[in-house]
Amino acid sequence: MRSPQSLRNGETPPRIPPHHFHSTVSIQKLRRFNTLILIFRFVSFCFCLAATIFMATNSNSSRGGGGGGGAASNSPNWFDFPTFRVVLAANAIVAVYSFAEMGASVWEILKGTTLLPETVQVWFDFSHDQVFAYLLLSADAAGTTLVRTLREGDTCKASNAFCVQSAISIGLGYAGFMFLGFSSLLSGFRVVCFIINGSRFHL
Amino acid sequence: MRSPQSLRNGETPPRIPPHHFHSTVSIQKLRRFNTLILIFRFVSFCFCLAATIFMATNSNSSRGGGGGGGAASNSPNWFDFPTFRVVLAANAIVAVYSFAEMGASVWEILKGTTLLPETVQVWFDFSHDQVFAYLLLSADAAGTTLVRTLREGDTCKASNAFCVQSAISIGLGYAGFMFLGFSSLLSGFRVVCFIINGSRFHL
Repeated sequence: MRSPQSLRNGETPPRIPPHHFHSTVSIQKLRRFNTLILIFRFVSFCFCLAATIFMATNSNSSRGGGGGGGAASNSPNWFDFPTFRVVLAANAIVAVYSFAEMGASVWEILKGTTLLPETVQVWFDFSHDQVFAYLLLSADAAGTTLVRTLREGDTCKASNAFCVQSAISIGLGYAGFMFLGFSSLLSGFRVVCFIINGSRFHL
Repeated sequence: MRSPQSLRNGETPPRIPPHHFHSTVSIQKLRRFNTLILIFRFVSFCFCLAATIFMATNSNSSRGGGGGGGAASNSPNWFDFPTFRVVLAANAIVAVYSFAEMGASVWEILKGTTLLPETVQVWFDFSHDQVFAYLLLSADAAGTTLVRTLREGDTCKASNAFCVQSAISIGLGYAGFMFLGFSSLLSGFRVVCFIINGSRFHL
């Protein structure tokens, strides 16, 4: 990382528009970087989608009107537990977001430009990665507690499959969070590169 | 934000050691910035300490041997709920961390240098802010779910004060998380400044 503190003495070399001087090496590096982000996003998407599906199919009965809020019904349904609804919503949101970001990454790899204007894109990616990582982690943590509590009560004795499937869904959510965190690291790095170089090309 | 892309053409102006050219304005700005961080850390410390105390004193009986793990004891004790133990631990960790960071901030404001070497300090601050923010948020989210669940069961009917005190403790934890998040934003900004300028002085 080149630290340009040497510019501090009042020297102002002529401004050059940043978009025309990228070497082949730089473009190759950027492409490899984008491919890595794409992989992370794909893995995160897969885990979160799987978690969503596991949670959404997690009921023994046919899904009723959904009005009941008690945890004491005979055949448990994810819809009766607000926390599981939060888990499902968080996983679904992250899955949709990852899918959209995959599209943006593919676009960038193929076309060489970002989908949104560059400034917007790097900040959008980083901020949303951060917020959704917090969202997903807190939803999964809340879900973990609920599963633990259910296991101590009667619900899991009545239908063990429900608890196991919930636990699997939450575990998949944690895996999705991990890869979302990796993406967040990379997009944070991209923001720093953007601030330093005035373009997302890092070299 | 000065973007030094103009250096890209192979110009390498002579390197100047970064520590001797800070104007009075720059030093004043840094001091104001550090004071802001100090305030955030202090508020975060207060909230987390209060949350720790509220949780630790949250029992009606004298604290027994602690071997029991069931939620069904007659006089509930925070120690019987693993989730509340996590909440207490997370809040205590963040309180201790905030206190230590307050010390580092005061040192920096008074002495003008960082406690640790500058590179270590800025990265240490930022990474720990991030990790502890995730830790605290997930602990509080888990605690929220437990309180919700307890409210549906018999525990809260038996002793309502226990549930209210738990909820207060968790709410204080959320407030602590918020201010830790603000600190994290500022320390992230400091990392970027450090990468750009090669020193934590931002101008």
